[in-house]
Amino acid sequence: MRRPWILDYDTANCTIGATIAIIGEKWTFLVLREAFNGVRRFGDMQRRTRAPRQILSDRLARLVQEGMLRKVPYRERGQRGRHEYRLTDKGLDLYPVLVALMQWGDRHAAGPDGPQALLTHRDCGAPVRLELACSNGHTLASAREVTPLPGPGAQRIA
Amino acid sequence: MRRPWILDYDTANCTIGATIAIIGEKWTFLVLREAFNGVRRFGDMQRRTRAPRQILSDRLARLVQEGMLRKVPYRERGQRGRHEYRLTDKGLDLYPVLVALMQWGDRHAAGPDGPQALLTHRDCGAPVRLELACSNGHTLASAREVTPLPGPGAQRIA
Repeated sequence: MRRPWILDYDTANCTIGATIAIIGEKWTFLVLREAFNGVRRFGDMQRRTRAPRQILSDRLARLVQEGMLRKVPYRERGQRGRHEYRLTDKGLDLYPVLVALMQWGDRHAAGPDGPQALLTHRDCGAPVRLELACSNGHTLASAREVTPLPGPGAQRIA
Repeated sequence: MRRPWILDYDTANCTIGATIAIIGEKWTFLVLREAFNGVRRFGDMQRRTRAPRQILSDRLARLVQEGMLRKVPYRERGQRGRHEYRLTDKGLDLYPVLVALMQWGDRHAAGPDGPQALLTHRDCGAPVRLELACSNGHTLASAREVTPLPGPGAQRIA
């Protein structure tokens, strides 16, 4: 087998690593899942993720700090003011990560009844999926059709 | 705001949750990144991920057990036999997850010089990206154009 070129490069500025450093933790993914589901309130998230209160609070604070969620005040009649959590544009950009996790899970980890949720195109109703495509308009069938090359930020190991 | 329908459904069989339960951990993502980079050997993975030896060993064992990696024996001249780790088809299906993490990171977490790696189409050389598309052939610009609906495995909360 050919030795991968990437072995000559430093991993320090890998953007997968950078992303994982922010969101690469089970509870954070579940919080993001809820946010994309339109679930915005602490109590709803807590019930659905079953995250311990302090963990949920920490993960939400981190996502706010990183600019993926923003806090919006609300007050229900007769209750004290609270915050709900909404995705920012930076947070919305994470959608393909969640869809990719779901697509793999629907194929390899669904129960006997099939997937719990279906993603459909708002405008035409057809099922939605992630595709690998190149800028020449070709759709790629798998990772085998991708060639990774060093980018402008690649740093050779001295 | 409309109350999301998903609040009436159980999260127990969510396939994002199921996928996260298998791979939703920092070191596991980094191991998968290396596997997709073509890095197959324990020592190379250890150096590149900086994972503690026992953690790397655990994560590799889990991925083998889950059928995402397979162990292939090799022997270098004058050394004892070892194993390298190769992605199975089930593992290769995780590629969109890694590309989605990279795409977000390239946009929001890259250093001043830009991304470390570029993904190109093996056949034509053009840059590759993930797109959300529907089965009618429309490309979707963002999560806002997706309507999630209950799937066949959705379980209402009693």
